[in-house]
Amino acid sequence: MTSHSEGAVALELEGRNSPPADLDLARKLFDELEQRTSNAFGFTRPSFGLGEQIAHDMVRREARKLGLETKIDAGCNLYMTLKGRKSGPGLMIGSHLDSVPRGGNFDGAAGVLMGLAVVSGFVKAGIKPERDITVMAIRAEESVWFGASYIGSRMAFGRLDGDELTALKRSSDGVSLLSAIDGNGGDAKSIAAGNAFLSAETVGMFIEPHIEQGPVLVDRKIPVGIVTGIRGSFRYRAARCLGEYGHSGGTPRDCRADAVRAVATLVVRLDEAWMQLADEGHDLVVTFSQFSTNPDEAAFSKIAGEVDFSLDVRSEEPETLQLMQEKLHEAIAVIEREQSVRLDMGKISTSTPAKMQPSIVKGLESCAQDLEQTTLTMPCGAGHDAAVFAAAGVPTGMIFIRNDHGSHNPEEHMELDDFALATNLLSAFCLSDPLEVAE
Amino acid sequence: MTSHSEGAVALELEGRNSPPADLDLARKLFDELEQRTSNAFGFTRPSFGLGEQIAHDMVRREARKLGLETKIDAGCNLYMTLKGRKSGPGLMIGSHLDSVPRGGNFDGAAGVLMGLAVVSGFVKAGIKPERDITVMAIRAEESVWFGASYIGSRMAFGRLDGDELTALKRSSDGVSLLSAIDGNGGDAKSIAAGNAFLSAETVGMFIEPHIEQGPVLVDRKIPVGIVTGIRGSFRYRAARCLGEYGHSGGTPRDCRADAVRAVATLVVRLDEAWMQLADEGHDLVVTFSQFSTNPDEAAFSKIAGEVDFSLDVRSEEPETLQLMQEKLHEAIAVIEREQSVRLDMGKISTSTPAKMQPSIVKGLESCAQDLEQTTLTMPCGAGHDAAVFAAAGVPTGMIFIRNDHGSHNPEEHMELDDFALATNLLSAFCLSDPLEVAE
Repeated sequence: MTSHSEGAVALELEGRNSPPADLDLARKLFDELEQRTSNAFGFTRPSFGLGEQIAHDMVRREARKLGLETKIDAGCNLYMTLKGRKSGPGLMIGSHLDSVPRGGNFDGAAGVLMGLAVVSGFVKAGIKPERDITVMAIRAEESVWFGASYIGSRMAFGRLDGDELTALKRSSDGVSLLSAIDGNGGDAKSIAAGNAFLSAETVGMFIEPHIEQGPVLVDRKIPVGIVTGIRGSFRYRAARCLGEYGHSGGTPRDCRADAVRAVATLVVRLDEAWMQLADEGHDLVVTFSQFSTNPDEAAFSKIAGEVDFSLDVRSEEPETLQLMQEKLHEAIAVIEREQSVRLDMGKISTSTPAKMQPSIVKGLESCAQDLEQTTLTMPCGAGHDAAVFAAAGVPTGMIFIRNDHGSHNPEEHMELDDFALATNLLSAFCLSDPLEVAE
Repeated sequence: MTSHSEGAVALELEGRNSPPADLDLARKLFDELEQRTSNAFGFTRPSFGLGEQIAHDMVRREARKLGLETKIDAGCNLYMTLKGRKSGPGLMIGSHLDSVPRGGNFDGAAGVLMGLAVVSGFVKAGIKPERDITVMAIRAEESVWFGASYIGSRMAFGRLDGDELTALKRSSDGVSLLSAIDGNGGDAKSIAAGNAFLSAETVGMFIEPHIEQGPVLVDRKIPVGIVTGIRGSFRYRAARCLGEYGHSGGTPRDCRADAVRAVATLVVRLDEAWMQLADEGHDLVVTFSQFSTNPDEAAFSKIAGEVDFSLDVRSEEPETLQLMQEKLHEAIAVIEREQSVRLDMGKISTSTPAKMQPSIVKGLESCAQDLEQTTLTMPCGAGHDAAVFAAAGVPTGMIFIRNDHGSHNPEEHMELDDFALATNLLSAFCLSDPLEVAE
């Protein structure tokens, strides 16, 4: 079979609106993941823990059956490569295989299984792609385990701080990131030295398929999304308000230092700022996820003297994040002055908005048209490993799959029919020689 | 000694601005209470528990030394009577001897020790009062132990529900109120039958001295307060807001059912209502003491799907409470409609405002003038046993003693000099034959 005849097979399949994706393999692996990494409370695949390792072992087993070349880097990320006809930078498809505690089956895993389904489809149809196609199973994306995001992809690019290896401990058991990496057969010393397994020179393009974590596709009744950019953020994970405990009946309004009232005021002021900026056309989300009085101290008839809370602000636009920072600090100054409390926001963590490669967005849109698929071009609110690839200079894109009930919970619900549509789209995209277009 | 000569002694003492109060006894008993009912974490005198019993035994011991007549009712309340010259309804001075867990030394106990100091002063000065003066040590005032307020005083008036005896369990150890009463030598069966030990016919007047639980006297630099009325309240101890968990980055504003934002909005709306009503001259306090996302479910990047909170609204005026109820329900309706959440306020508990007897307020003010004391006439924000006496039809008054750092905590701080001023005031008031005035 010549390269020409292979191209013809692909085109023929495209013409029939069904690229050669191995959806049976994906279905089988979703079922196996469910059986092996879930219990009555949901799906748990801790970073460098049992559930994640089971998932890595499963996909490596399938990759070997398909004859793919498999590699594991110093950070335990797994690479499964179908060799292309040309050498040089290839196309990478990847996502993570860890999950939050009591999460769902699809967040992360769907992207890896979609990559395998695409590659397996090519193998089974006898298609040898122009360039290498590598499916990457990324480690430790979920920040809940080690308190830091994108550990796996950052390690792959040599961008993890050496300090993080010893400072970060797994929330479930206190194991350090260093021990977790070495315990899984990795090489923490090499990570600490900043050695990179990937670079913008070696990865020609990165596509991350992922379930949508928000409800936009469900609301719009569109099965597949094409992502234009990943929102950046600033976050305060451990903010505190300190007031003064006092008797609820005996303390007049102007004598109070009520931490609940103060933080509630901050929530409402930032919500007002959000509404205003949204009206002016800014992309923005503002979330106070945690808000808790001290259970040991708070009592029914006591004015609250302290509140712990968290704040997460995200936008596609760096200027909007800057604007919200200013509005936050203005609000804090007013509340501290008027309500006699102290608002200590604690450590800030930030991420820069990541733009997806416009040529990839266009290429995916064009393939969707060819397949007569309706897709939605949309921003991505959540952080993903794709942001690390984009920041490293790799042309990057993301495909969203419609998903009900949000993510990070056992109810997350992706229809396999929607997964099939997205897989077909990705398969068609791979066959469109996107690297030639991107260059 | 005739009644006339006794009156002369009293007047003479009044003239010297030092009524015959036994402050040494009070000081000694405060010290003993500290030694016997506190540890490194604070003062703990559980209702019907060890600390409370120690306090009851202590004051009974002193009463016997003074030759007072002592009685204990079916609910284990203790009465210590200095007989007056006339029979018939006498003057009662009382407060409670229990404390919250890790509370302070003065909340409750100060009132009982002040009663003893006044009576002991009379005994030692050889004064026989016109009418009986009874010091009452009341049981189980703090609602934290059995989840209900004023158990002791309600028992004394035969106003405890029989159901409460079995339904209420002590929060610290699960012991039922019935077992706690019988275990302390009481007679729960008699309580269940609604037998009253006290009535408006047998108690001529009730005065409760108490530390101020709020900061008003400290702020105003006035040592003693004369209370005009006890605020009534409506309270929701276990309210919930149900929204929907969702990804903080991926969920647009109009798709959110954010429980934190919803409850924060409620806090701010009711605070605005409070400001408005206060400007219009209403007496009011509004407190959200507890506000907590679910620690097992809430996570940094999740929109909060549930919040537990509590609300406490108090006023001296029943109409103001009614008005705030209406404002609360209006706010709930708007928030539920606009923010797609459900606000379930749970069980309401209410108490009716209790007016102090105007003649008692006047009498105390007049005695303070005679003693050249500066006092503040003020409402009382917290609930007290005095409210039960007032509701039963007994002419009732309260004296506040300045107290720093609020109450219900080990830092509560009453100066003995302030206690002495209030005791002198009460002593003078007892010698002014207030029952003749009240009748």
